[in-house]
Amino acid sequence: MAIAEKLASQQKSISVAEFFEKNKHLLGFDSPTRGIITTIKEAIDNSLDACEEAEVLPDIWVSITKLTKETIRIAVEDNGPGIVPDNVPYVFGKLLYGSRFHQIRQSRGQQGIGISAAVLFAQLTTGVPARVISRTGADKPAYLFDLMIRTEKNEPEIIRKEEYNWDRTHGTRIELEFTGSLAAKRRLIDYLKYTAVVNPHARIQADIDGEWHSFERVSDEIIVSPQAIAPHPYGIEFGTLKRMAAISKDNVHEFLITGFSRVGLKSADQMLKIAGIKGTRKAKGLSSEHLKTLLAAMQEVDVPPPPASLCLSPITEEMIVQGLEKEFELDFVKARTRKAQVFSGHPFIVEAAIGYGGKLDQEGQALLLRFANRVPLLYQQGACAVTNAIAGINWRSYNISQQSLPIGPILLLVHVASTNVPFTSESKDAIAAIPEIEKEITLALQDLGRELKNFINKRDRNKLAEDRARAVCSIIPDIATKVAEIVELPPPDISPIEGQIMRRVVAKKKTEDGMVGVSVTNYTRKPIEVMVYSLSEDNQEEAVPKPDFIDVIGSEFNAVWRITIEPESAWKATYPGKGRGTIDIRGVDEKMKVVVDLDGIY
Amino acid sequence: MAIAEKLASQQKSISVAEFFEKNKHLLGFDSPTRGIITTIKEAIDNSLDACEEAEVLPDIWVSITKLTKETIRIAVEDNGPGIVPDNVPYVFGKLLYGSRFHQIRQSRGQQGIGISAAVLFAQLTTGVPARVISRTGADKPAYLFDLMIRTEKNEPEIIRKEEYNWDRTHGTRIELEFTGSLAAKRRLIDYLKYTAVVNPHARIQADIDGEWHSFERVSDEIIVSPQAIAPHPYGIEFGTLKRMAAISKDNVHEFLITGFSRVGLKSADQMLKIAGIKGTRKAKGLSSEHLKTLLAAMQEVDVPPPPASLCLSPITEEMIVQGLEKEFELDFVKARTRKAQVFSGHPFIVEAAIGYGGKLDQEGQALLLRFANRVPLLYQQGACAVTNAIAGINWRSYNISQQSLPIGPILLLVHVASTNVPFTSESKDAIAAIPEIEKEITLALQDLGRELKNFINKRDRNKLAEDRARAVCSIIPDIATKVAEIVELPPPDISPIEGQIMRRVVAKKKTEDGMVGVSVTNYTRKPIEVMVYSLSEDNQEEAVPKPDFIDVIGSEFNAVWRITIEPESAWKATYPGKGRGTIDIRGVDEKMKVVVDLDGIY
Repeated sequence: MAIAEKLASQQKSISVAEFFEKNKHLLGFDSPTRGIITTIKEAIDNSLDACEEAEVLPDIWVSITKLTKETIRIAVEDNGPGIVPDNVPYVFGKLLYGSRFHQIRQSRGQQGIGISAAVLFAQLTTGVPARVISRTGADKPAYLFDLMIRTEKNEPEIIRKEEYNWDRTHGTRIELEFTGSLAAKRRLIDYLKYTAVVNPHARIQADIDGEWHSFERVSDEIIVSPQAIAPHPYGIEFGTLKRMAAISKDNVHEFLITGFSRVGLKSADQMLKIAGIKGTRKAKGLSSEHLKTLLAAMQEVDVPPPPASLCLSPITEEMIVQGLEKEFELDFVKARTRKAQVFSGHPFIVEAAIGYGGKLDQEGQALLLRFANRVPLLYQQGACAVTNAIAGINWRSYNISQQSLPIGPILLLVHVASTNVPFTSESKDAIAAIPEIEKEITLALQDLGRELKNFINKRDRNKLAEDRARAVCSIIPDIATKVAEIVELPPPDISPIEGQIMRRVVAKKKTEDGMVGVSVTNYTRKPIEVMVYSLSEDNQEEAVPKPDFIDVIGSEFNAVWRITIEPESAWKATYPGKGRGTIDIRGVDEKMKVVVDLDGIY
Repeated sequence: MAIAEKLASQQKSISVAEFFEKNKHLLGFDSPTRGIITTIKEAIDNSLDACEEAEVLPDIWVSITKLTKETIRIAVEDNGPGIVPDNVPYVFGKLLYGSRFHQIRQSRGQQGIGISAAVLFAQLTTGVPARVISRTGADKPAYLFDLMIRTEKNEPEIIRKEEYNWDRTHGTRIELEFTGSLAAKRRLIDYLKYTAVVNPHARIQADIDGEWHSFERVSDEIIVSPQAIAPHPYGIEFGTLKRMAAISKDNVHEFLITGFSRVGLKSADQMLKIAGIKGTRKAKGLSSEHLKTLLAAMQEVDVPPPPASLCLSPITEEMIVQGLEKEFELDFVKARTRKAQVFSGHPFIVEAAIGYGGKLDQEGQALLLRFANRVPLLYQQGACAVTNAIAGINWRSYNISQQSLPIGPILLLVHVASTNVPFTSESKDAIAAIPEIEKEITLALQDLGRELKNFINKRDRNKLAEDRARAVCSIIPDIATKVAEIVELPPPDISPIEGQIMRRVVAKKKTEDGMVGVSVTNYTRKPIEVMVYSLSEDNQEEAVPKPDFIDVIGSEFNAVWRITIEPESAWKATYPGKGRGTIDIRGVDEKMKVVVDLDGIY
């Protein structure tokens, strides 16, 4: 069949840059609208990662300029450690080049694809080289590069390289020009906002075509980059074990201890015993059959989970709550940071939060904020394990209506931190449906759902009780008047009854036989601390108990008591006088307070 | 900052094989369950593509054998054109190597990743090399290879290569051993079934761990591989234009005509005029600025859409209906093949079908069959443009209940054929949300939805009318008896009334005064063709009209008339005789037929 030869002549190797140029949507460059967001995201991810590695508080500056109807210039600049000049062309001009791919620890970037893909997208759409300026310290010059990617080779092409007079002592700046549209500006601002929420140590300032957006840091605590750990014996595949053994110089016993996380002397002994391999043999010399037996043995021995506290960096409940309150002014917000768990040997931590009320949309589906390794996920919500898990929860059992997602003024935040977040594509939009991860998300949200239910129930109960009380109180004056008419007495003071029914704090003044009585009754269920003010022409120096202090204001005396009153209790002061003037209390909500001057009633 | 040097020391290049080994879920190898399906899919895709290229009717043989509790051996063998021995190691042992990446035409495989990823997955999980046997013709020897991939280089490693005594004259066989589970056997069989539905020219036979599944071809028509076309001027990016110009030897005028699809002399002239570029200049010599102007000009000139009929291969409405009827025995099925459309310069065709009733599940969500370039899509339904489009249609307007997807015994099939199907990931599970594609899917399904509505309405109307008629008929005998009593006559023959109300075909025999009358009345709304049988001791040779033939059976005569009766019309035959015997009609549904022998009534 001559056809085979014909086909053979067409078969050839494709460079990874060619592949991703053709499949640029896989990297989040499907459209000019999305291209901007992806580019900014990749640049900021790199900046934040680099700052953490250098233990610097990140200061990131973003600029987006519309050049023509269709072209945009983006610049992102940071105060990170900078990149040594020899490596700059590779970091920005070669896909699959980076420092974090082989490291087992939480980081935003991992694949060494993102920012070079942005460079590729720029040269594909406008042909303009990427400009990079970087400086690694005050004692080093800054360098400026104009870079392109030789697509068919996936290698950088240096168009220009020169020393540059830069006022920064360290940092990196990238400038890109590409076909883009600001149609999704709202989403871009959301991205910056959400990034700020989960990176409270970062300051991000953005000039979006003349519109200034600033996100100040809310924490001055430097986030230290998580440490890389060795692979865990439960998460290793045969091929990886084989490769590790092939380059090892140790004997098998040492190889197990130094090569793997959480394997100590004792567990290494056990593994070797089960596998029937002598610990003194060189790891390099083990046959495939031996390695298979060893791998099986490694799964059988009890080994603690990977040291998540070293390699992961959760946001923490406090920081999540703080961030959400700042942005959404919620009536209710709670967060949970779950304990670290493991899937396929990769440690991960799920954090979640539920917010309610405040500025949230009263109707429609819940607002869902998804994060992975402190990076907001903006696209492919429907394909994400987070969405799956949320839709799988029976929200109705928390008195929340649901149509796949919960409905109402609800915000759901989920953060998955892992040494290896299983994204469904290189564009890192959605987390794959890993059962262990979905389970953790579910547990965290169910826990928070119960708290939200309590909050809503209590609020509803309070509202119901108050409505009832209000109804009762509205007829009391009529009843009192009627009764007074019948018994032919003046209408009684009904404020204590109202106060009691409505659970208020009632302050009262009444003068009888030359003695003025000032009382405060706490009908609420909590102790209160209040200041009682009595402004009067009567000199109150002889009051019992004695006022904490008295101001003289013209011809009037302002007596002040600072008192604590237990629930369902009353406090009273008396002094001789005519009872003119006014009283007031401070320290309770205005809505909770009833002030009655009975001297004024008759 | 010494940190930059420290970071630099960690920065390095990652091979694409390393990348996909770590991110194997991107290629559909997330789990042992899925690994099997992905492997079989990739192998079958390659076989079908190769057979089409060689214009051979595909004969594919699949074998899955459980070796241990966790390991599986898969073999897939085809009668394709084979692969020349020099290329075998690259086709199976190097990612991003193939013949179809740069060709603009519909094909199943495009990226040159799939089958080598399966080899990578096998060596990662079991370390066993892939075995490939291939032969390109009867006059050539077959070769056997044992292959691995050097992950860190993404290069093949030939463990063994030898001539092999193979009974096939041409074809390819691949054998892989990996960690796998048959837990998703049902889905695997579905995959094979659906593949057969959209590849009616293929025979697929599978031995799934001892269980034999055979899918015979339903069409002997060879599917000719679509032809590759040149890129369309509307779908070209600046970077691609620049690269094309750089390797061109033509002047710009020739470059436009030969380099692009649908650009003729006239449109090339127009483009050059708008761009202000002389056609005689060498394309290679154009500056970036010139190329930008030219690209803009190319978008302004009217050019017909790309020649979809050459480069695309739709399944056709007839073949879809045939395939679905065979597998699902539906009460209703219709298909639509839409006209070719274009997104970003890539031609595509949407085909859709709706099936109803039959063997489909009466409750729950519609069964959704998604296909891209004749390949079934089994995962990530929620992330797919097809699902999006379906959920976006208001099915209630077709009297179909809906909960995101339609509910009921409904099957929806959608096939997207394109020179560049925009998948959301390399695993090719879901089609990205391209507005042009979603629109076509929506239009096709709305059109079919209207037809389904008509079908259901008619069926419901028929059912309702029948229910009413049945109610009326159930009281007619009582009325007839009552009336007969009152007027003191024998009860009348009510069969014509029943037949009329129920829209039946009524055959009647009645003998009076030595004359036998056999009549057939068609109360339905359609003309009928029936055979009337009259079995009797009377010799019916003198019947008017004359019977078409008469059989003598013992002492009886069986007269047969073949007649057509218009709606609401009657046919009658008479002959002299005693009227004994029976009559019957054939050619109408049993449920539609009423036979009344009035000779037997009295």
